[in-house]
Amino acid sequence: MMTTSKEQVEQLVAEILQDSTEEDEEVLLHLLNGLREKQQGIHRRYINATLHMVGKFEPEVSEVRIPITPVIHNTIKVPHGGIVATIADAAMGGLASRYVPEGYNVVTTNMNISYIATTTNKELIARGRFVHKGRQTLVMECDIEDETGRRLAIATGSFFVIQRRP
Amino acid sequence: MMTTSKEQVEQLVAEILQDSTEEDEEVLLHLLNGLREKQQGIHRRYINATLHMVGKFEPEVSEVRIPITPVIHNTIKVPHGGIVATIADAAMGGLASRYVPEGYNVVTTNMNISYIATTTNKELIARGRFVHKGRQTLVMECDIEDETGRRLAIATGSFFVIQRRP
Amino acid sequence: MMTTSKEQVEQLVAEILQDSTEEDEEVLLHLLNGLREKQQGIHRRYINATLHMVGKFEPEVSEVRIPITPVIHNTIKVPHGGIVATIADAAMGGLASRYVPEGYNVVTTNMNISYIATTTNKELIARGRFVHKGRQTLVMECDIEDETGRRLAIATGSFFVIQRRP
Amino acid sequence: MMTTSKEQVEQLVAEILQDSTEEDEEVLLHLLNGLREKQQGIHRRYINATLHMVGKFEPEVSEVRIPITPVIHNTIKVPHGGIVATIADAAMGGLASRYVPEGYNVVTTNMNISYIATTTNKELIARGRFVHKGRQTLVMECDIEDETGRRLAIATGSFFVIQRRP
Repeated sequence: MMTTSKEQVEQLVAEILQDSTEEDEEVLLHLLNGLREKQQGIHRRYINATLHMVGKFEPEVSEVRIPITPVIHNTIKVPHGGIVATIADAAMGGLASRYVPEGYNVVTTNMNISYIATTTNKELIARGRFVHKGRQTLVMECDIEDETGRRLAIATGSFFVIQRRP
Repeated sequence: MMTTSKEQVEQLVAEILQDSTEEDEEVLLHLLNGLREKQQGIHRRYINATLHMVGKFEPEVSEVRIPITPVIHNTIKVPHGGIVATIADAAMGGLASRYVPEGYNVVTTNMNISYIATTTNKELIARGRFVHKGRQTLVMECDIEDETGRRLAIATGSFFVIQRRP
Repeated sequence: MMTTSKEQVEQLVAEILQDSTEEDEEVLLHLLNGLREKQQGIHRRYINATLHMVGKFEPEVSEVRIPITPVIHNTIKVPHGGIVATIADAAMGGLASRYVPEGYNVVTTNMNISYIATTTNKELIARGRFVHKGRQTLVMECDIEDETGRRLAIATGSFFVIQRRP
Repeated sequence: MMTTSKEQVEQLVAEILQDSTEEDEEVLLHLLNGLREKQQGIHRRYINATLHMVGKFEPEVSEVRIPITPVIHNTIKVPHGGIVATIADAAMGGLASRYVPEGYNVVTTNMNISYIATTTNKELIARGRFVHKGRQTLVMECDIEDETGRRLAIATGSFFVIQRRP
């Protein structure tokens, strides 16, 4: 008899909870809450759900946030550099993709990040803005801070405008 | 009466499974398997567990892998640019941190990624190598491919050597 | 009998003027004026003299200018991308080197330039500013425009603080 | 009576030679030789003539050289970071522009340079190669060394293919 996905889920959860540290449970709740929020329409993609990444996009500027939890810690318990890149790409790319006309989308062609400081505070906040709005390429800038205004990194991104596949 | 973390986990899992699509279950199993593997010592950090990111580090080169699943998809169902940056940072930074002497560590000061192509294949593979081994700064390069050898991106990283906090 | 440098100069000038186009003469005058200005103390280095590159450095911001002449044209008669990089490096590095204490200097460790537009106008103007003033590293930003305010490029630079050799 | 360009040239040369140091004369000869070589067809642009920048372009790789003289020195008498960027852009862009079909050209959209070491040797040598040959974008890499093989910098460049103006 084959085990269904649901049964596998339940069994794995039981196994994890048997050996779990407090931090394991915190992480597990975080991931599950993200998934639940995706089902409720709060997140459109699993990556956003997993990271609890939420964004606000105005025509000219964007603001994307990720809570700092053990889910995104690197070995020295500060946010992983790749997650800083992820929030920067989301803030710039999300703004860029909303700018291009119906039927078009953008792809990142280049991203450059300078890391300035790290933080043990609560939240990563990336703010994106336009530098150049070309017909075929967009250039964006982004500041990444924590919730106290401590600047963690700056990023520059180049985006190429493509036709959306039907 | 307060609900324990474990009870919250179980309740959330039940709620998720009630509304779950096949893809939700696939993602949930993926995340849970990652956490279980962390408990078993396969992953040292939750970010690696969440992404199923595993690395091999030889003295001069590194190879880090992430399976391509809906967990890392962006809106157009290909790997999120930030996750490509994450695997590049892991491949370069992991190699750099193993190079510096006992009592030291590295922090990323700059990362530049040029995105070349995207993929609908199965795996992201990042291969890191040294360009320069200075006393205070390390410069690294990295190629990111899928498992068929399709080149997805190239990255350059600068790392600063710091004393490890005791 | 050996020819002196001065005699060689005079002979070369004569040869050049014999075959010279109007543009050759414009370029020659430009280079000679730069050298003369260096002798008069207007430029400290030959590279600045050759490009007629002049800068103003306030504590927090810098402004460096280069006239657009055939000397810096690329094949399509607009400023060479490398000269845009040169003025950006001068604006950021000049500001950074004035910031560090007596006995110290800075070296560029990374520069990233995004080119936005080109120009057939009269002047390249680079404006540098600080993003981060660390004890060992400085991060700078720079906008490059022409004299009409048309934005040509943006640059980010990382600088490492070194002890000046005695 | 108006002074002609030629007369202005001769007068400036006389003034410069009256006050000239040995280094001034070396630089002046260098610049004049470059201009003469341009007249003889060795250089196509004044920027190449001024820097004595010469390149070899094979289908897949390029090699561009600049002699290290006081013309390109920065304040600490090593090659100016901007000139390292210039030779990198020339090596990558020159290769890219020869690759695109008749009637097309390329423009640099992004350049990233990591500076590794400096040199007091004789020559800057940049070697360019392709990373990606797309229909609309090209990605290139470049190593910059001196003539002893000492690696000075690495660069990555993105180029956009444009139609050549008639």
